[in-house]
Amino acid sequence: MDLDLDTDGAALTAQLVDVPSVSGAEGPLADAIERALRPLGHLSVYRDGDTIVARTELGRPERVILAGHIDTVPVAGNLPSRADGARLYGCGTSDMKSGVAVQLRLAAHLPEPGRDVTYVFYECEEVAAERNGLLRLSRSAPDLLAGDFAVLMEPSGGQIEGGCQGTLRAEVTAAGKRAHTARSWMGRNAIHEADGILAVLRAYTPREPEVDGLRYHEGLNAVAIRGGVAGNVVPDECVVTVNYRFAPDLDGERAAEVVRSLFEAWPVTVLDVAEGARPGLGHPAAAAFVATVGAGLGAPRAKLGWTDVARFAALGIPAVNYGPGLPELAHTAGEYVETPAIADCEARLRAWLALSRRTYRAVPTGPSLPRRSYRAVPTGPGRRRA
Amino acid sequence: MDLDLDTDGAALTAQLVDVPSVSGAEGPLADAIERALRPLGHLSVYRDGDTIVARTELGRPERVILAGHIDTVPVAGNLPSRADGARLYGCGTSDMKSGVAVQLRLAAHLPEPGRDVTYVFYECEEVAAERNGLLRLSRSAPDLLAGDFAVLMEPSGGQIEGGCQGTLRAEVTAAGKRAHTARSWMGRNAIHEADGILAVLRAYTPREPEVDGLRYHEGLNAVAIRGGVAGNVVPDECVVTVNYRFAPDLDGERAAEVVRSLFEAWPVTVLDVAEGARPGLGHPAAAAFVATVGAGLGAPRAKLGWTDVARFAALGIPAVNYGPGLPELAHTAGEYVETPAIADCEARLRAWLALSRRTYRAVPTGPSLPRRSYRAVPTGPGRRRA
Repeated sequence: MDLDLDTDGAALTAQLVDVPSVSGAEGPLADAIERALRPLGHLSVYRDGDTIVARTELGRPERVILAGHIDTVPVAGNLPSRADGARLYGCGTSDMKSGVAVQLRLAAHLPEPGRDVTYVFYECEEVAAERNGLLRLSRSAPDLLAGDFAVLMEPSGGQIEGGCQGTLRAEVTAAGKRAHTARSWMGRNAIHEADGILAVLRAYTPREPEVDGLRYHEGLNAVAIRGGVAGNVVPDECVVTVNYRFAPDLDGERAAEVVRSLFEAWPVTVLDVAEGARPGLGHPAAAAFVATVGAGLGAPRAKLGWTDVARFAALGIPAVNYGPGLPELAHTAGEYVETPAIADCEARLRAWLALSRRTYRAVPTGPSLPRRSYRAVPTGPGRRRA
Repeated sequence: MDLDLDTDGAALTAQLVDVPSVSGAEGPLADAIERALRPLGHLSVYRDGDTIVARTELGRPERVILAGHIDTVPVAGNLPSRADGARLYGCGTSDMKSGVAVQLRLAAHLPEPGRDVTYVFYECEEVAAERNGLLRLSRSAPDLLAGDFAVLMEPSGGQIEGGCQGTLRAEVTAAGKRAHTARSWMGRNAIHEADGILAVLRAYTPREPEVDGLRYHEGLNAVAIRGGVAGNVVPDECVVTVNYRFAPDLDGERAAEVVRSLFEAWPVTVLDVAEGARPGLGHPAAAAFVATVGAGLGAPRAKLGWTDVARFAALGIPAVNYGPGLPELAHTAGEYVETPAIADCEARLRAWLALSRRTYRAVPTGPSLPRRSYRAVPTGPGRRRA
C-alpha cells in the first residue's frame, strides 16, 4: 500500500491507521513510509530496522526534530478506521498516527523550512524500553538525532506539554517469621507487618514543584503487593512494589534517596528508574516554539507521564510533547481523534518551521482554512519538490 | 516385604518406614499390612483402596477405634531409616509410622480385648481432603467406623490432645479505581485501602476459650495478599486471604460470622471451612481413656491444629489425638522418633484396651519391661492366635 502525502492530514491518518503496526510488526508501515519519503529530493532518508529518519540538510543555523512512534498497542477490534463526522475512530488514531500524518505532511511539503528539520519515525514505543527504536538510534547513531530542540508528537490534546516526570519502581519488603497458623504466636506475620509500609503510602503528601515555570505533581503508589506461603503458614515475607513519579527537578539518584528515606524501616530494592526531563522552555528554540505554535493555546503545562522526551533530554536536547491526539483515549478500544485538530497541529507546526528571519514569512493558518493555504510561501530562493 | 508383628515396636516402626509410602503411593505398604493382618483369626479385615480396616467382633458393649494414616510427605533424603541410640531417624518415623506400629502390635497381640477395637490404617492424609481415605470410608462405609470413642495416633509427643480447632479461609477484598500512576489522584489505590484490613488483623485479640475443660487458643492471620495490574497503574483490587483458626465451641457457620463481622467494611468470600472437634472428654469411654492411658502423663491439652479427629466428631464419635511421635519434627528432613515412647504408648493403650470389668485384669507395664510382659493376660475364655 502506498501512502498519498498529498491528501489531507485526516485522510492520511486513516491510511496510516489501516496499515496495522502493533509493536514488533511495524515492517509494512515502515516500508510504506520509506517508499513515500525516498523520492523526495529535499530529504536525506535513513533506515535502521523499522525506524526511519528523514532530514533536510539546508545548513540552517538551527535544527529541530519532530519525532513520533509508528507502533500501536494491540488492536482491539477497532480496525479498519472509521470516520464519523469530525472524528476518526481506530487503533492508533490518537496514539499517534495522527501525529505521524502531520510529520509526513510537513516532510513532504516543506522542502525549504526556515529551520533544518529531522523527522524521526520509530518503532516499539509501546513495549519494553530495550526494544524502543529511538533509544537504539540514540546509542547507535546519535548524530542522526543531533538538534537544538525536539517535538515529540505524542497525543497532548493539541496543547504544549513540557518535559516529563521521571518514574522509579522499587520493592519494599516486610519480613516476618514462618509458623503454623494454628500456633501463629510462634511466628511473626510479614503481611501484618506490611501495614507500616501502607501507612507510609497513605501519609505521603505529593510535592508539586515548579520547574522552569511549569507545575509538576508527584505521586507515590503501591502498584503490586505479594505475600503468602500456604493456606496454613504465617508468611515470612511481604513485598510491596511502589512506583514513584518524580518531578524533573530530581534526577533518578535523588528520587531513589527519597524512596529509601520514606521507607527507611524496611529493605528497599530499586527495580528501575527512568529519568524525567526538564521542560527547557527557556531555550531560544523552545521559546520560539511556544510563541509561534502556542499562540492562542493555553499556557504550556507540565507533562506528568513519562515520555520519550526524556531520551532527548538525556542527549541534551530540550523537548516538548505536542500532538493532535487525545491522551485520555490512548490504548482504549474506542480510540478516536478529532480530525480538525490534525489540520490545526499541522498548520501551527508549518508556520513555526517556515519562520526564519532570512527567507520565510509566516502565513496565518487555522483549521478552517482550505488545505492548500496551510503551506508556507517561499519568499526567497529554494528547491521545490518535483 | 513381610512385616514381623512379633518384633518390638521400634523394630516394626523401622520396617514400616523402610517401605516408602508417599501420599498416593501407599500400595506396597497397604499390601504388607493386609498380608500381616489377614491370617489373624480374631480380626475381620476389610480393604478399600489402600485403606485397611481390621476389627475384633467380640460383641463387647463398647467399641473403640484406633486410627492412623500410612502415608508420608515426600521423602527428603531421609530413607532408609537409621537408628542412633534411642532415636530412630527417617521419613515418617514420627508422622506417623511409629503410631501405626503400635496399632499393628496391638491388633496382633490383643485377640480378646475388653473393648472391641477397630483398627483403621488409611491413605492420603497428607494431601488434599478429597483424597483422604478416612473421609472416603466415612462416606462409603460409615458402619465400619462405628464406635464409642476414637484415638487418632497422630504425633502428640506421648501426651493426650483433645479435639481440634477448626480452620476457615476467606478472602477480604479492598476495592479502588484504576488510574495511570502519573495522575494517581484520578484513581483510588486498592492496595493503600487494604491497610484497613491489615489494621483489623493487627488489632485482633485471640479468644482463648475453655471447651470441655481444655484451653484453646484461636488465631487470625493473613496467609496471602495480592494486588496489582501493571507497573504504571493504580490498582483497583487488593485481596487478602485470611485464615481463622477457631476453637471447637464455634461451628463453621459461627466462625464465618466472626470473620464477616470483623471485616464488615469489605466484601468477604469464605473459601473453605473445616469444622473443629470438641474434646469430648466427658464421655465415659474418653474419661476411662484419660484415667488409664493418661496416668502419670500431663493433663490432657487442647489440640490447636486441625486433624482427622474432626472427621470422627462429624460422625458423632468423641476422639483424641495420642501418639508416640514428636509433632514438631513432622515434615522435617531430620524427623526422628524416640523409641522408648513407642513402647510406652503401646503399653498404655494395651492396658486400657485390655481393661474390662468382666474378663481381664490389667497388667502394669512400662517401657522398661521386656516385650512379652506388655501383653494383657486373659483370665477368662477367649480365642488365642494360632
